[in-house]
Amino acid sequence: MAPAYKLKYFPSKALGEPIRFLMSYGNIEFEDVRLIREDWPQIKPTMPFGQAPVLEFKGITAYQSIAICRYLAKQVKLTGANDLEDWEIDAIVDTVNDLRGRIDEYYYEEDAEAKEKRKKPLFEETLPFYMERIEAIVKKNNGHLAVGKLTWADLHFVGVLDYLNYMIGKNLIADYPSLQAMEKNVLNLPGIKEWVAKRPVTIN
Amino acid sequence: MAPAYKLKYFPSKALGEPIRFLMSYGNIEFEDVRLIREDWPQIKPTMPFGQAPVLEFKGITAYQSIAICRYLAKQVKLTGANDLEDWEIDAIVDTVNDLRGRIDEYYYEEDAEAKEKRKKPLFEETLPFYMERIEAIVKKNNGHLAVGKLTWADLHFVGVLDYLNYMIGKNLIADYPSLQAMEKNVLNLPGIKEWVAKRPVTIN
Repeated sequence: MAPAYKLKYFPSKALGEPIRFLMSYGNIEFEDVRLIREDWPQIKPTMPFGQAPVLEFKGITAYQSIAICRYLAKQVKLTGANDLEDWEIDAIVDTVNDLRGRIDEYYYEEDAEAKEKRKKPLFEETLPFYMERIEAIVKKNNGHLAVGKLTWADLHFVGVLDYLNYMIGKNLIADYPSLQAMEKNVLNLPGIKEWVAKRPVTIN
Repeated sequence: MAPAYKLKYFPSKALGEPIRFLMSYGNIEFEDVRLIREDWPQIKPTMPFGQAPVLEFKGITAYQSIAICRYLAKQVKLTGANDLEDWEIDAIVDTVNDLRGRIDEYYYEEDAEAKEKRKKPLFEETLPFYMERIEAIVKKNNGHLAVGKLTWADLHFVGVLDYLNYMIGKNLIADYPSLQAMEKNVLNLPGIKEWVAKRPVTIN
């Protein structure tokens, strides 16, 4: 029988990988469909709001990667213990996603001059500003991004990290030991360790 | 006694208004602190990740407006009936927030030439693309953005709408009757109607 969950995304880790991490961690079997770039113009109009990843299950086509992650986190028990803990998780996940947006603005800028102009403020101001604060949060939270224990915020961050590193051309967490320890911890989790060992090798 | 909730934001509706709507709807008394622009350079470093709005309550300083909205929605019973309904709400809220991001990119572009270049694709492609799909969703959902009933997704959209309209210089929902009916419905809700009548008049 085909798995009950089908992820459709590009042949990348990027925004698909946090979803793959959560399903791997929770032993949720899934079909890992990798869309071919040449087919995307035909597929795009069939996607809700023209975007991927989507997760097909229970007859629905779930879209918005973070909303999908939050749903899966509830199924695999990686949420907070109460509403306030869930706020804390949501806030840091959206903050990491904001940081991704700032990196996107630079990476996807097509005008060479405008891109060069964005470079210095991104690397000298934005990245250190965010990363120092995120590192301090992890240090304070027993090696985690929120509520002092493993949650889907940790899996989301580590899942998307290779993509961020690819876009900035260096290791985002090179100067941040608590985040490095967190990455190692997540990559060693049962389910995720096996997934990382068997996943297709991709550049981002 | 001072209210248990203190919202700190600029003298704008913008990202603060969905939070104000949710508290008004739920009869949560709050202190509506409006930060003066001239003071912001001093205040910014004291804010988590340098941003507003924040909501102070129970000894914490909650940040990230959508995460705050989701927390409040749970308190005032405007969430879904199960995890799948909550995914549906989360997905459309993040989609509206993506649309806001696209409008931001245009509105906050400081380079006049680059701004002009962004104008046509935004107004002729992005806005109609999103709005046609969002309108269809509301039509299908009994006049709501998700799960066929009033949820915090509706309050979030209507709360942020004036800000979006301000940035694009026209009424985003002018051509979309289901969204207009939804706006009217939200603005007539008990609590919100009274809030809108008494709130400070601001340009955005």
